[in-house]
Amino acid sequence: MITVAIPKGGLLKDSIRLLQSVGLDFRAFLDSGTRQLQIIDASGRAKGLLVRAQDVPVYVDYGQAQLGIVGYDVLREKKPNVAHLVDLKFGYCRLSVAVKESSSYRSSLDLPAQIRIASKYVNSARDYFQNLDLPVEIIPLSGSVELGPITGISEAIVDIVSTGRTLKENGLIEIETLYESTARLIAHPLSYRLNTGNMGDFISKMRQEMVVSI
Amino acid sequence: MITVAIPKGGLLKDSIRLLQSVGLDFRAFLDSGTRQLQIIDASGRAKGLLVRAQDVPVYVDYGQAQLGIVGYDVLREKKPNVAHLVDLKFGYCRLSVAVKESSSYRSSLDLPAQIRIASKYVNSARDYFQNLDLPVEIIPLSGSVELGPITGISEAIVDIVSTGRTLKENGLIEIETLYESTARLIAHPLSYRLNTGNMGDFISKMRQEMVVSI
Repeated sequence: MITVAIPKGGLLKDSIRLLQSVGLDFRAFLDSGTRQLQIIDASGRAKGLLVRAQDVPVYVDYGQAQLGIVGYDVLREKKPNVAHLVDLKFGYCRLSVAVKESSSYRSSLDLPAQIRIASKYVNSARDYFQNLDLPVEIIPLSGSVELGPITGISEAIVDIVSTGRTLKENGLIEIETLYESTARLIAHPLSYRLNTGNMGDFISKMRQEMVVSI
Repeated sequence: MITVAIPKGGLLKDSIRLLQSVGLDFRAFLDSGTRQLQIIDASGRAKGLLVRAQDVPVYVDYGQAQLGIVGYDVLREKKPNVAHLVDLKFGYCRLSVAVKESSSYRSSLDLPAQIRIASKYVNSARDYFQNLDLPVEIIPLSGSVELGPITGISEAIVDIVSTGRTLKENGLIEIETLYESTARLIAHPLSYRLNTGNMGDFISKMRQEMVVSI
């Protein structure tokens, strides 16, 4: 039996639907009443483990889950040692540079050297500005990054944007996109090579699902 | 005018009360209806900035706030470059090692080498076990650490305990305490030396409050 790490939050519904389409029923995780964290599928072939989105690659990296579903943004930021298998197409968002709408900056190269940039995605932000050869000061915030320019701790931010509403509400505009993100199917590399619990079967079914849905 | 970084969450109420006792009224942050993040005290001597607890030392470290209130646990884990001024006595909790109650481990030295230990406090946990000369594998989880032994990703955890109820509900027991934590008043070192906005005045009043309350 394999274990699949399933992310709480925004990707949960689509993840459950995808797993159902390949014959694994973990819909009980969607009952708001349940506090279950582990469910064994009726077929007995897989166990679902409900964890925080950030922790999905940790469970897969340490081999506690053989498969997992997680946003590309988390993989890009944390660089866990997992195999990236399938782009699942749902959960679209992007990591963007944003500044005050009232500022004169309209591209990353307009930003002055040593500018302060607040972000939860410190590794992604650092890599991006290093590639631009622009020395900046990254301010690591744990949340509400869009408030950086309002509180004055930073002139720009690097943050996840999906609809763009949060930026708008805070008088910010996107000036550049670092990368786009969707949900990914990931695997524990060794389990993947050994085809533990016949997991290759689920993986090829998910790949087919993706082809059909395009 | 100085800026005081005030933590959302568990320390908020006591922080507001303390600031009130030294003549700064930021009670408007307690109105659940308000979405205000910045309030200027009626006296015009200080501005309150409501931020995530984890981000309080970031705002103080970067000089965007001259004073801040934050748990010792955050300071110990993140080691920001801020001056620790006053132990405010409220917000007691402790960082502890916990294991399954059904295990045979009753102290940290009972733990076998290479044991897996899940924690949000990876730096504190690493330092602790290095001092014990016990090589362990720290698993960095972002939340729900108490589930580590249930999901099987770790045999032990290092986590914050206040009442102990969460541990009990998950069949875990504390076997060792790394350190105890209470709320602390912190300052931006340079602003403190320069006595920006006459901040020394507020600090000595808070010190007196602490003496009186004992």
